[in-house]
Amino acid sequence: MLNYLAGQWLSDEEATINVKNTGILTGISVYEVLRTYNGLPFAAKKHFERLKKSADYMGIPLPINFDEFLELLLEGVKKNHNSSGEELRIKVILVQSTNNFSEIIVLYEELPKVSSDVYELGVKVGISKFIRPSAALVPSIIKIPGAPWKVLTRKAMGVYYDMLLLNEKGDLCEGTISNVFLIKDEKLITPNIESGILPGITRENVIGLAKAMEIPVEERTVKGWELFTAQEVFLTHTSAGIVPIRKIEDRVYIEDFADGITRILLDNFEGFIMTNESNWEGLSK
Amino acid sequence: MLNYLAGQWLSDEEATINVKNTGILTGISVYEVLRTYNGLPFAAKKHFERLKKSADYMGIPLPINFDEFLELLLEGVKKNHNSSGEELRIKVILVQSTNNFSEIIVLYEELPKVSSDVYELGVKVGISKFIRPSAALVPSIIKIPGAPWKVLTRKAMGVYYDMLLLNEKGDLCEGTISNVFLIKDEKLITPNIESGILPGITRENVIGLAKAMEIPVEERTVKGWELFTAQEVFLTHTSAGIVPIRKIEDRVYIEDFADGITRILLDNFEGFIMTNESNWEGLSK
Amino acid sequence: MLNYLAGQWLSDEEATINVKNTGILTGISVYEVLRTYNGLPFAAKKHFERLKKSADYMGIPLPINFDEFLELLLEGVKKNHNSSGEELRIKVILVQSTNNFSEIIVLYEELPKVSSDVYELGVKVGISKFIRPSAALVPSIIKIPGAPWKVLTRKAMGVYYDMLLLNEKGDLCEGTISNVFLIKDEKLITPNIESGILPGITRENVIGLAKAMEIPVEERTVKGWELFTAQEVFLTHTSAGIVPIRKIEDRVYIEDFADGITRILLDNFEGFIMTNESNWEGLSK
Amino acid sequence: MLNYLAGQWLSDEEATINVKNTGILTGISVYEVLRTYNGLPFAAKKHFERLKKSADYMGIPLPINFDEFLELLLEGVKKNHNSSGEELRIKVILVQSTNNFSEIIVLYEELPKVSSDVYELGVKVGISKFIRPSAALVPSIIKIPGAPWKVLTRKAMGVYYDMLLLNEKGDLCEGTISNVFLIKDEKLITPNIESGILPGITRENVIGLAKAMEIPVEERTVKGWELFTAQEVFLTHTSAGIVPIRKIEDRVYIEDFADGITRILLDNFEGFIMTNESNWEGLSK
Repeated sequence: MLNYLAGQWLSDEEATINVKNTGILTGISVYEVLRTYNGLPFAAKKHFERLKKSADYMGIPLPINFDEFLELLLEGVKKNHNSSGEELRIKVILVQSTNNFSEIIVLYEELPKVSSDVYELGVKVGISKFIRPSAALVPSIIKIPGAPWKVLTRKAMGVYYDMLLLNEKGDLCEGTISNVFLIKDEKLITPNIESGILPGITRENVIGLAKAMEIPVEERTVKGWELFTAQEVFLTHTSAGIVPIRKIEDRVYIEDFADGITRILLDNFEGFIMTNESNWEGLSK
Repeated sequence: MLNYLAGQWLSDEEATINVKNTGILTGISVYEVLRTYNGLPFAAKKHFERLKKSADYMGIPLPINFDEFLELLLEGVKKNHNSSGEELRIKVILVQSTNNFSEIIVLYEELPKVSSDVYELGVKVGISKFIRPSAALVPSIIKIPGAPWKVLTRKAMGVYYDMLLLNEKGDLCEGTISNVFLIKDEKLITPNIESGILPGITRENVIGLAKAMEIPVEERTVKGWELFTAQEVFLTHTSAGIVPIRKIEDRVYIEDFADGITRILLDNFEGFIMTNESNWEGLSK
Repeated sequence: MLNYLAGQWLSDEEATINVKNTGILTGISVYEVLRTYNGLPFAAKKHFERLKKSADYMGIPLPINFDEFLELLLEGVKKNHNSSGEELRIKVILVQSTNNFSEIIVLYEELPKVSSDVYELGVKVGISKFIRPSAALVPSIIKIPGAPWKVLTRKAMGVYYDMLLLNEKGDLCEGTISNVFLIKDEKLITPNIESGILPGITRENVIGLAKAMEIPVEERTVKGWELFTAQEVFLTHTSAGIVPIRKIEDRVYIEDFADGITRILLDNFEGFIMTNESNWEGLSK
Repeated sequence: MLNYLAGQWLSDEEATINVKNTGILTGISVYEVLRTYNGLPFAAKKHFERLKKSADYMGIPLPINFDEFLELLLEGVKKNHNSSGEELRIKVILVQSTNNFSEIIVLYEELPKVSSDVYELGVKVGISKFIRPSAALVPSIIKIPGAPWKVLTRKAMGVYYDMLLLNEKGDLCEGTISNVFLIKDEKLITPNIESGILPGITRENVIGLAKAMEIPVEERTVKGWELFTAQEVFLTHTSAGIVPIRKIEDRVYIEDFADGITRILLDNFEGFIMTNESNWEGLSK
């Protein structure tokens, strides 16, 4: 793969940065992860806006505008996708140098393939013993590398697809790579921003899809134990979309969700995101 | 300066790492900052042990033992100190690569000089509006780069020497680069580990000095407002030792601490640390 | 004094209730404390509405309407004030009986006199070590007897006029008998309802007075330590109105507030409340 | 029934107290509830000691010693039990008068009968939306009337046998009238005192029974959601002993616990408490 770094397109081997001259080691960096569909960067505008919000919050100057951002993404796609035909995962990092100058790094890799079992059988998730601070303690919007609760949870992942984190009040937040949704009494319920979550682009699309299908949506604080009184639970994340949950901890959760709301959302998800204009802003398809 | 990286001694300009192949970007790294006194690395054993604890907690394999660690420090000191005669600040970073292999990086720079005004007049500190989670929420021991409360507080520092952070209960924790001590009723009081602090080596030495001088020491939870009912308050950190505080926020704090306990501790600090064997373990002085 | 109980006017000695037949012992009761000015019950409508809110929240039926409530108050004043000419303190208790029937009790006593020193010199207050839960934990509106933090704080009162309580986050709430206000940068600041306070009628009048005088008012979360960076601090409570604070803990606070905003509010307080129509609703003066 | 009040034995109708002269209305009171087995007061010494601890904590003088306390209980039992042959529920209240003098009140009533369905089929419990503060916020030991979270939860009880409360961290505490136990991996797990519970005498006996039967016991913080990953859950309280739970919220919990550990404990409970000397201290059986 070729990656964008210090104004150049560099191979994986050449993609080096100076450790003394950047905010990498002092943590003054924020990032976004995007994916492509059919070689087109998905929801580029939304990711750009979230990156800008994080950057503003952290006081890091953002050296490019959306058009330049999109151009960079597309240039990399051309260099990396066209040769292989594989979908890509694109990591955009904004790092502040020690001299108050900031830099955009764009790293490309092949999008990991998701087994069809994940969608058909659902996955097993655990509940982390580490605490994800709520937005009242640590601002949610900042997508920083190395949040300790995330790193420590990932170290403890074992056989789970992901582990869900609760905040300091015992409210449900999110997984280490995913947002989480519950179906209860025919409603779609998901933790609100205040609970302490990254407001995922896939999460936003699922909420949009549900509204389009006239399924009532509640963004609210969700007690950790509500996971067990819900009828269905699923995850969402960029690389896999909607991922049904079959088991939480060692407790059977959903034996069969064939006719459930999760299945309905799953069946309609790709159609929705592909035709939803807001996901393709800037691209003349 | 020459820095140790990938098994080589490299100049500042050459000190680069691959962004795709390390845990730098995923935050799987821990670090320590040491200083030299007269060109000798201070409290190397204590820093090594703290690094080991962080590494164990994060599940990062530590590829060297203390003897190798000390040898690395000394080799760098020889390369960097002897030429200039300046004291050094040494940053040791342990990074886990993506392939579960870990690497030690040692960066050297000149120790910033501290103005004598700092010790004679004291400094002005603020109270951060950002929250430092207590140890019950986020394990204190892990010294990770980029804790958001630290980064955001530093962005808001303004004219202050440092800003003090309180935890989610309103208890006093620490500054962004320092630990904090109060003198009240002839006792030395400092937040305990549970409050959410990095257990500083200088902090440990000040506690040792106070005990040696038979000044009662309390490590306990300290309410944020106790800063204002104390008779004296001071900071401690590696590069400057003991730093008296003259003002907190815009409120005059200590007009004159000439005869206070802070002054007594300051006057005896260097003598204590230089002669305290535990700070020089491994060095045949 | 004569008191209203079980539909009768009874002397202090006769004022008995059955312990088995009421909610007194199971705590299903709420109360209000009013005072008279010139023998007229102050802010009767506001107290009635607050009682109603508490009762609704606790699910206790309120057996009388405002007119009946006011009539009861006035009847007691006639019986108790006219003989002595003293101002009265009136405690109204709504108790739910075990059989889901509720009862109004009205107790009268002489209003304690406030020494002029309190207003001229100010008072000394402490900070309680007991925690007043915020409204997110325990609904603020319910004025129940025997909140443990209040009872325990009062046991520890010592020489203080009142002690201030902080909530579980270290935010300032209120005293055991008072609300608290800060003056900072010419603004009037007081903890908001969410912090965990009883929304005092005197507090409400002071806010009204400040607004009438075009002093900016902030109702917000106030960190405990802000008590010490304010220029002036005062208490408010029904029986004494505005009470300046001279000292917090053992720290001199305000040497001289002769020309401060507290003094200005104090000088205008009685005039404001006596002429503010909303305090005398239902009374044809 | 005859009740002990103001040094006299009074019928239910005569059992009145003066509202102005006692701490009843200011909440300066603590209480205990005991029951009889075969007309003998159960665990009188343990209840006395807990009452004493509460009284000491609240600073209320306890006007009687254990011998006098037991004598009072027995005298009431003689007066009330012997006539009817029914088991009794005995409420002991210690009230502080306004003049710093305290009084013991002992109220007797028939012990409510427990349907055998409760033991054979188990009960349905809910999870309260009100928060029980942990011991770090509100001292657990004090058994005061009218804790708002308890009163409000009871108002919302509906069809449930009891509702479980979680603390401000989302940890499991207790029911409004009961303690709660989980069976998980053949271990008996129950919230520790720090979580915010009343340390029930029945709870203590169940822990003793489990230990005697060599079932491992864990007193620890229990996340609210662990209720749903346990194999069995049961309540304990004075009047009913061990009460199996069949359902939590609207989720089937235990279909059949016939051979579970709950059943084993239930079958051995009465034998254990009847022969455990510590429950009958002071009684020459």
